[in-house]
Amino acid sequence: MKVQLTSPLDMHLHLRQDDMLKKVAPFSAKYFSGALIMPNTIPPITTKELLLEYKKAILDATKDFTFTPYMSLFFQNYDKKFLQEIKNEIVSIKLYPAGITTNSQNGVSKIDIDEIGDTLQAMSELEIVLNIHGESNGFVMDREKEFLPIYEVLAQNFPKLKIVMEHITTKESATLLEKYDNLYATITLHHLFITLDDVAGGLLRPHLFCKPIAKRPEDKEALLHLALNAHPKVMFGSDSAPHPKSKKEAPGCAAGVFSAPVILPLLAQLFEKHNKLENLQAFISDNAQKIYNITPPKKVIALEKKAMQIKNEYEGIVPFMAGETIEWSVQ
Amino acid sequence: MKVQLTSPLDMHLHLRQDDMLKKVAPFSAKYFSGALIMPNTIPPITTKELLLEYKKAILDATKDFTFTPYMSLFFQNYDKKFLQEIKNEIVSIKLYPAGITTNSQNGVSKIDIDEIGDTLQAMSELEIVLNIHGESNGFVMDREKEFLPIYEVLAQNFPKLKIVMEHITTKESATLLEKYDNLYATITLHHLFITLDDVAGGLLRPHLFCKPIAKRPEDKEALLHLALNAHPKVMFGSDSAPHPKSKKEAPGCAAGVFSAPVILPLLAQLFEKHNKLENLQAFISDNAQKIYNITPPKKVIALEKKAMQIKNEYEGIVPFMAGETIEWSVQ
Repeated sequence: MKVQLTSPLDMHLHLRQDDMLKKVAPFSAKYFSGALIMPNTIPPITTKELLLEYKKAILDATKDFTFTPYMSLFFQNYDKKFLQEIKNEIVSIKLYPAGITTNSQNGVSKIDIDEIGDTLQAMSELEIVLNIHGESNGFVMDREKEFLPIYEVLAQNFPKLKIVMEHITTKESATLLEKYDNLYATITLHHLFITLDDVAGGLLRPHLFCKPIAKRPEDKEALLHLALNAHPKVMFGSDSAPHPKSKKEAPGCAAGVFSAPVILPLLAQLFEKHNKLENLQAFISDNAQKIYNITPPKKVIALEKKAMQIKNEYEGIVPFMAGETIEWSVQ
Repeated sequence: MKVQLTSPLDMHLHLRQDDMLKKVAPFSAKYFSGALIMPNTIPPITTKELLLEYKKAILDATKDFTFTPYMSLFFQNYDKKFLQEIKNEIVSIKLYPAGITTNSQNGVSKIDIDEIGDTLQAMSELEIVLNIHGESNGFVMDREKEFLPIYEVLAQNFPKLKIVMEHITTKESATLLEKYDNLYATITLHHLFITLDDVAGGLLRPHLFCKPIAKRPEDKEALLHLALNAHPKVMFGSDSAPHPKSKKEAPGCAAGVFSAPVILPLLAQLFEKHNKLENLQAFISDNAQKIYNITPPKKVIALEKKAMQIKNEYEGIVPFMAGETIEWSVQ
């Protein structure tokens, strides 16, 4: 069995910086036509200079491939003039609640229309998408659920602003998606495969530790339902987040799953298993093109149902499902 | 401020074997008058020979202290004659569902009265306590809750059998305790201090990874309510479960928290903080003496409110709250 995917897009990708960028960017650039690049670098991407410099570094690291980095700014209050000026260089702005994940110390400490409404209004008028890491500071299994009222306030107050609930992990988020026309979502690879049981139900598996943490079986089912049916408001976004092996395997393991090298074969396996292979093209590219109004460079990736063993490490980084034999591979 | 505890008992303790036994047993023997020793050794304690050999090894390892190891057999079907013969050497039999935790491969695969009723009936007649690791094979956060109907069946069918729900972690278990006269429970140190948030809410902390996994804030509150009020059906049982540092800090980290060296000061701190210091004696000794009908050797441990820093390691094993400064210490 075979399937061809045209211009795959990864609408939530961490490429990091410097050496790590050079190591990991090719894995995405080889298989994807473009990706939305997360701006939680050190320092975060908050100026045109930093943005252009980062984009150049990404283009350098991916120069052997046809690959478009879609850039995102790190959310803070920006004036409309600045946004107008930078609009053609970005597709979105990513909002992090302060301290919620890797390099988010400079995030927003109070998500409140009085505080950030002007920036959101300007984004709405300029048609800049808002990405949000939607978690509260509460109990780890409740954080996403507790954040939903904030999505509601934003969706109601800025009805023309496209808001993407990033890497959703709960059935409650799947339900909220239907309530507001301007809410969208990305779903990762790993949240379609694992629950908290895989992370901490047997032995503890640090390579599956991520934020938001994998949730309950019924949550995974809700995400699968959206993805497998290529719900038009849902896009693939890997949240592939590399950390060196030494940092993942020490106590105080950093959050993040590195999936970039193995995404397409695993998605093909998953969609085929559920007899939904015909929906993968929409989930992996078409939906994102419509939502972001982008036209990525044409790139065709052919996959076939042929067993492949995932490597134990790629450039010193342990990938999702390291060492496992999977059913599909890139042709 | 000071408090004296008379004959502290740890009614759920893993002492392991060989070198590990020699390393860890003194930490319990120094501060406790006795402990119920878990039988999930390799091989499990299922014969009189193994039991006596293990007891001797424990007495050798604790010979510098006044300390009584209360012995437990590993549950399997035993005939009444054997139980009669071994009765004076044990206080209880510990039942593990197969594969549920460290060295439980030989546990019971089907907890069913048709399968194990004769043994339970004999135990009931001989007044041998039944300890149970009560978890299903389900989703990690639901395992204890899913096991509760089995406790109910056993409690109803063997009303004279004393059944101890070991290391309870949920509010549902706290509620069930009230429903049957013959149900009792142990609570660990760590489940009075942590929730899943501490294990996986920030960075991943393998030294807090244990089975049953720490649950939700409202569950911890229910356990605190039982312990701080020294509920007469509830005893302290540390479930102190040492693994070498190298095994805890590698991917595939084994489950278990090593608390033996730090139990009494941390309990004193906790009970004092809640103005319940007067209940600690019942929780740490008196309740267990009544439930098990045992009289441990007299041993008085004096604690004072004086800051102490917990070591980073004891004999190559990382303890609960390693490196932290706590408010109480043994005098």
